[in-house]
This record gives sequence, structure tokens and C-alpha cells, in this order.
Amino acid sequence: MALHFALMIDPAASDDARTDFSETFTAVDPAAPALTVGELSTQRGDGIFESIGVVDGHAQEVGAHLSRLAHSAQLCDLPQPNARQWREAVTRAAAECGPGEAVIKLILSRGIEHGPTPTAWVTAATAADNTRARTRGIRVVTLDRGYTLDAPTRAPWLLLGAKTLSYAVNMAALREAHRRGADDAIFTTTDGFVLEAPTASLILRRGDTFVTPAPHGGILHGTTQLSLFDHLAAEGYETVYENVPASALHTADAAWLVSSVRLAAPITAIDDVDVPVDAELTAAVNAYLLSPRD
Amino acid sequence: MALHFALMIDPAASDDARTDFSETFTAVDPAAPALTVGELSTQRGDGIFESIGVVDGHAQEVGAHLSRLAHSAQLCDLPQPNARQWREAVTRAAAECGPGEAVIKLILSRGIEHGPTPTAWVTAATAADNTRARTRGIRVVTLDRGYTLDAPTRAPWLLLGAKTLSYAVNMAALREAHRRGADDAIFTTTDGFVLEAPTASLILRRGDTFVTPAPHGGILHGTTQLSLFDHLAAEGYETVYENVPASALHTADAAWLVSSVRLAAPITAIDDVDVPVDAELTAAVNAYLLSPRD
Repeated sequence: MALHFALMIDPAASDDARTDFSETFTAVDPAAPALTVGELSTQRGDGIFESIGVVDGHAQEVGAHLSRLAHSAQLCDLPQPNARQWREAVTRAAAECGPGEAVIKLILSRGIEHGPTPTAWVTAATAADNTRARTRGIRVVTLDRGYTLDAPTRAPWLLLGAKTLSYAVNMAALREAHRRGADDAIFTTTDGFVLEAPTASLILRRGDTFVTPAPHGGILHGTTQLSLFDHLAAEGYETVYENVPASALHTADAAWLVSSVRLAAPITAIDDVDVPVDAELTAAVNAYLLSPRD
Repeated sequence: MALHFALMIDPAASDDARTDFSETFTAVDPAAPALTVGELSTQRGDGIFESIGVVDGHAQEVGAHLSRLAHSAQLCDLPQPNARQWREAVTRAAAECGPGEAVIKLILSRGIEHGPTPTAWVTAATAADNTRARTRGIRVVTLDRGYTLDAPTRAPWLLLGAKTLSYAVNMAALREAHRRGADDAIFTTTDGFVLEAPTASLILRRGDTFVTPAPHGGILHGTTQLSLFDHLAAEGYETVYENVPASALHTADAAWLVSSVRLAAPITAIDDVDVPVDAELTAAVNAYLLSPRD
């Protein structure tokens, strides 16, 4: 995923109604220094982000990503992002993505320590080839996230519903999964509920019902999961948000991790116990996710 | 705390026994771009750090900080830092600090995504004036850290004993404390034990005994706390590591938050309940902490 495009953004006020924000953008060489060592994103992971899938130059579900960026900003006491400005930046970045799959990343950092404003930028990169994960599936392990299900309600300063730049634990969980011979992880609560993967949402199939853990604030509301639930509902399936006990993982008729770039990866085993795979449905789901979506 | 010095480091292998690492250092303008947008420190808070106090050009407790950096690297699966190289970088940075108090920060990032090596750098800045906190004290509130005391043992991927760059929660806790009219916070476990502050260690006095929460992996082992315990033991006091129940906060004869730069800040109130302050002992402790320490 080598970056091929980067655009620094001078963040506009959320109510700035300009129709052209191009003068607030500065294209930079993604391989050249662009950030100072005083950046709070780098010193403290203090900021928020979004990763948007791009297919043949079309950025997917931009509105849902910008809504979540705004939600993360609110949880982190960051200034509300100007949605028009960010959308224009995404359009600029998408124009730099050729045919095939790419990823656009939006980053809003608290800025330079004691500096006047947040720092913001957008990058674009060619996506890794995720064909194998989508077709042959992934093995996952469950990992304790350390919290009970009610922690986010009780302690909002834990920022559990915000997509912050402080992803060291998410990365450590992936390394732990790899050490255990798995491809990915599913976080569980200490009181026995299922949450999400370090960089994806979980969807389980139970007959003709699709289930995902309810985002009470403790997990991110997945943009791909949202989009897929709309699609499945339109196809006549039932879709529900629930508190999912960890025991439900082993009785599911199928399970997927879904995310903006890898899309739907069918889970073939959880903690070394096989999970049924519906190859046909998975292919249909990924065909939908690869179609232009707004 | 405007940065006045920054040195990029090309990390050497831990067993590189060179006696001069100057060719691995590049001084950069701390106000100019030095990091690319592909940096994993900035994208994911994926890296570790240390903040070292400097008094009149003397960097304090460098050995203890380098030991903790090595411990954090191990927990985060980062290459072991070369202690000689980092010590030389600290010496370079300390030489750029004039009279008075300063802070040197060491940062080891996982590097650029898919890049060959970690990225590393050192900065120096004049310290904020902490006289008020040291003499008039600080009001604190307790905040739930969301975990039970045994979480770090059970789930090492939560990185609870590592000083990572993923500090968004620490910063959110400080903002929550300020919203509640306090200066700082003390994290507690969900099962009722005391941990640490977002950027400091807690020390309680009970008669002639000084108590700090036992670092079972869930909290950082404070370098200032370690140094102060050595000093207090030499003065004839008892020093102990314990599992400290939150109830002990309100029966303490005195309490401090101690850290590398603010040093010992006496706590005047916890959750709006007054705590006795020993101004004389606090002054003596800060005089010690301001003396050259190795």
C-alpha cells in the first residue's frame, strides 16, 4: 500500500459554506517530509481517521465515513470537520486513483502542540490484493478486549466509539493473532460478548437473519456493515443489532469480517473450530461491495 | 513547550558497539516538516516514547528511561533500541538545553508502512513553569480505566505496561478532569484499585511509609517514582509496592503525582475531598528531584 498521493488540508470551520475549497489544499509528495516532529498525531496518537475504499476511481460511502469522522471528532473534543471541504478533498484524491482498488485515508490530528489549529490531510494508495481473503477466507482467534460491555457508557473518556489514531492495541492484537497462526482477531468483552475485529466489523448469519454486535459506543459503527445491511435488507433478509454472546460464534451458519478495503472476508475458523462458509453468498456480497456505492 | 531542537536517528542494531553514533544523527529544524504522512506513529500511534526531565543541561535518570524504552519495545514487538546510541542522542539534545528546566523526548516509531526500519528521533523543549503545581498542589478526580487489575496479565496485547504513542485516552482523561474542575486524574480499575495518572505515577504517604501501586504490567513503572523511592529509603522511610484499594486515597496522610517534568505535585483534593498537604516534605522532595540524578 505505498502512498501515491497526499494532500495537506487547512481545516475550514464546519459552517464555512464555500463551494470551492481548493485554496485550502496543498498537494505534497507522500514520500517527502510533510509533518513536523511536534505533531500530536505522532507524539500521542491524538487525532482521528477514516479509511475509504475506492473502486475504479469511485470513493465508496463517503457520506457514511464523513458522518463517522464527525462523530469521532465530537467524542475527542476536536473541531467539527467541514464535510464539504473533506468531500472535495476525497474527490481530489479519488481522481488520482486509477482503475482497480485503492484506499483513501482521512486524518484529522489535534495539530502541533500549542499550535493554532488541527492538522489535516488525505492520502491515497493502491490497495493490497485481497482476493485470497475474500475467496478462501480467514482464520480468526478471539481476544479479550479487557472491558465489560457497559464500559463505554460508564467511561466515555475511554473513547471506545471513536476511530482515533491510537491504534497500537489494534495492531498488537493483529500480531497476537498471527502468532497464534490466525489471520485476524475478534475482540470479546470480559463479560462474554463479541465486539469487533481490530480493523473490521463482524457479521454472523443465523438462518436468514444477519446479526452484528450492537454499537452501544463500545465499537465503531462499521460503514461497510451498514451498507451491507441495507443491501441484505433490500434482498429480503432480516438484519439485526444485538448483544452477541461469544457462544454465538460457534453456532453461526456463517460469519464474515467486513471492512472498507478488504470488504467481506468469510471466516473459516474461530479459535480453531471450523465455521461453515457460504461461498456463493460471499461472492455476491463482495460483488455488491465492489459496485459503486454512495 | 515549543521545541527548540530535533534530531532524527537512524536506529542502530541493539548490539552495535560503536563508540560514536554521530553519523546516525541528523539535526532537523523542529518547526519544519521532518516526517512523511506514511509514518505509522502518526497513522496509528504505533510506537513508543519517553520524556526525560532536564535541569540546567543535565538529563535526569537516563538509564531508567532507556530501560523502560527497551521494555516498551519488547512489549510492542519493536526492535530493541541501542542504549548507547540513544544515550548519545540524549547527550546531544541536553547540550542544546540552557539553564533552567527542559524536557527531552525520545520517540521510536514502527516507521513508514512497509518501510525497512523504524523511525526514531529525539526532541528538546523548554519545560513549562511547574512552580504552581509543585507548591500550591493539584486537585484530582478518579476516573475508571475500564479494566480489572488482572487485565494486563490476562491480555498482554492491551499493552498496558508499555509507554506507547497511543495516548488519546490519556489526553481524553485529562480533558475530562478539566471539565470537572480538576487539574489531573487518577485512573482506577473496575474492581476498585488505584493505578496511575494519565501522565504521572501516584505516591501515597501512610505514616512513615510511602506506597505506590504495584506495577504488575498494568501501569508504567515511573522513573521519577523509582528515583524518589530510592531517596526516601535512604532517608529512612519505608517504601512499598502494593495493590492499593481506591478507599486508601481518602485515608492517606499525603499524596503526590510524580512525573519526569512536573516532578512532585502534592494532591490537595481527590474527588473534592481534601487531602492533607505536607508542604515542607514536598519542597524537600522537589529539591531532590531537581538535583542532578543518574
